[in-house]
Amino acid sequence: MRRRTSNKDLSAVIIAVPHYEHPALAIKAFEKDLHVLIDKPAGVYTKQVREMNEIASKSDRVFGIMYQFRTKPLYQKLRGLIKSNELGEIKRTNWIITDWYRSQSYYDSGSWRASWKGEGGGTLLNQNPHNLDIWQWTCGMPTRIRAFCYFGKYHDIEVEDDVTAFVEYKNGSTGVYVTATADAPGTNRLEISGDRGKIVVEDEKLTFWRLRQSERLFNKEYKDGGFGAPECWKCEVPIKSKDTEERVEIINNWLDAIFDGTELLSPGEEGINGLMISNAMLLSTWINDWVEIPIDENLFYEKLKDKISDSRFNNKL
Amino acid sequence: MRRRTSNKDLSAVIIAVPHYEHPALAIKAFEKDLHVLIDKPAGVYTKQVREMNEIASKSDRVFGIMYQFRTKPLYQKLRGLIKSNELGEIKRTNWIITDWYRSQSYYDSGSWRASWKGEGGGTLLNQNPHNLDIWQWTCGMPTRIRAFCYFGKYHDIEVEDDVTAFVEYKNGSTGVYVTATADAPGTNRLEISGDRGKIVVEDEKLTFWRLRQSERLFNKEYKDGGFGAPECWKCEVPIKSKDTEERVEIINNWLDAIFDGTELLSPGEEGINGLMISNAMLLSTWINDWVEIPIDENLFYEKLKDKISDSRFNNKL
Repeated sequence: MRRRTSNKDLSAVIIAVPHYEHPALAIKAFEKDLHVLIDKPAGVYTKQVREMNEIASKSDRVFGIMYQFRTKPLYQKLRGLIKSNELGEIKRTNWIITDWYRSQSYYDSGSWRASWKGEGGGTLLNQNPHNLDIWQWTCGMPTRIRAFCYFGKYHDIEVEDDVTAFVEYKNGSTGVYVTATADAPGTNRLEISGDRGKIVVEDEKLTFWRLRQSERLFNKEYKDGGFGAPECWKCEVPIKSKDTEERVEIINNWLDAIFDGTELLSPGEEGINGLMISNAMLLSTWINDWVEIPIDENLFYEKLKDKISDSRFNNKL
Repeated sequence: MRRRTSNKDLSAVIIAVPHYEHPALAIKAFEKDLHVLIDKPAGVYTKQVREMNEIASKSDRVFGIMYQFRTKPLYQKLRGLIKSNELGEIKRTNWIITDWYRSQSYYDSGSWRASWKGEGGGTLLNQNPHNLDIWQWTCGMPTRIRAFCYFGKYHDIEVEDDVTAFVEYKNGSTGVYVTATADAPGTNRLEISGDRGKIVVEDEKLTFWRLRQSERLFNKEYKDGGFGAPECWKCEVPIKSKDTEERVEIINNWLDAIFDGTELLSPGEEGINGLMISNAMLLSTWINDWVEIPIDENLFYEKLKDKISDSRFNNKL
């Protein structure tokens, strides 16, 4: 890194190294006046990522993150339906994302893997950053989280491999997120319920059960007692196909931003959002209580350092 | 009731009255040496239901409860697949049962409805007893519960109309239960993940993603690293149709037990199980903490009495 950044012709760098080093290397790159694209996750704990974001915001360089799920037409369509208010105000989100199956053999393939010291976390940090980002990118950030993480439940590892989280959002709506690396076959089903119906994203398809009127309005105006409900249409929403490779698309989008000043699909500063949710899920488990968003970044970092100092990866060095 | 039970020819009674009165009337009936079939829920709080069960167990009369969902071939098949170990040891249960939509007009149709004093609870007690019973009948009782109930969130009522609960079972598996009366259209999707695959019950269909070998064994024996997973078959399991009316079937089953001594499909004593889960969900919300199963029945009853004394149904009398 040092040698490459001394090259005066170098103006941009892609950082794809172990999770812990993303923020420190990105900060060095901004100091060298480089454009930066970091791999996910943005880092391991939000304290280091916030510091990186502050330095990035003082720089005029282009800062992107490799959240290639944002290039998927499926999730772009979902986000569009929500942002354009087709779904109405959200009442409930529910993502069962348990199709991240990993065997013990996978974990054994690298001694740094799934250790507090080597990797800094488990499935929330390794497999789930894309999903956590898409969840907040489409449905917004929660305001508080109560989560239940299990560590080494189904594998001989020290980090989480089974997580269920309950969240609340600013408007009073709620959400559930379930993930694990031991369910075979797993499920990938995202359901979002709103004032104008329900969207389910599953099997690469998006189905919109669309109400002809607002449920809140129906609730207020309907007078016939009994089990009346608003009229609903099941709509199969077309998703365009594409043949570009997702990671290449993110890189091209980042290069376009550098050369042409176009908008970034995946700004680096937004990497803190999914990580904040993931940190909150761990912290809620460790303190066995609710965690507010934004989290107490120092408390999380203190707890993480305790885990690192007890990490069995120490014995492997 | 008093007049009818003085009739010497009467030997059995079906109790279908407001929830609070089920246990007291059932106890009176057992004292008159009658066979009893109570409507669901067994009662409003487990303290009264446990007392009913104790008196029932001392009687030699036949005691049933109107859990007619137990007659559904869909749930009988699900239970059979679990009990026969086709699914293997359970890892995870997840029931999104939000298709209990009710408008304000429904709640306004009876002043006793959805009040602590008149009905004793909200959707957990009115719409969900069948689902809670099927959940425990197929997957077993949880050992502890952390739940998040919202009271009058989407309706002008004083009881819960939106609930998310997280549970743990004895073998370490976990579960999620989500219900509400304000989602249009709602969802009714029960997913159970086990060591031998996954079952999803939705749209009156049962799909079994069956693994050719135990996941736990695969996890242990597989050595090729990467993302290997056990071979899985998607199996559409046939569900027999039937034309009998479910409630009639429960009554006939109860009568057969009285006349022929055949086994009850839905023994009255089991009514306490679903109610225990529902009480635990409320109690967990009220104390903002975990609740162990069996619950502290006196603590729940004390908290319920507070709600009853503040109930606005008092003003309507």
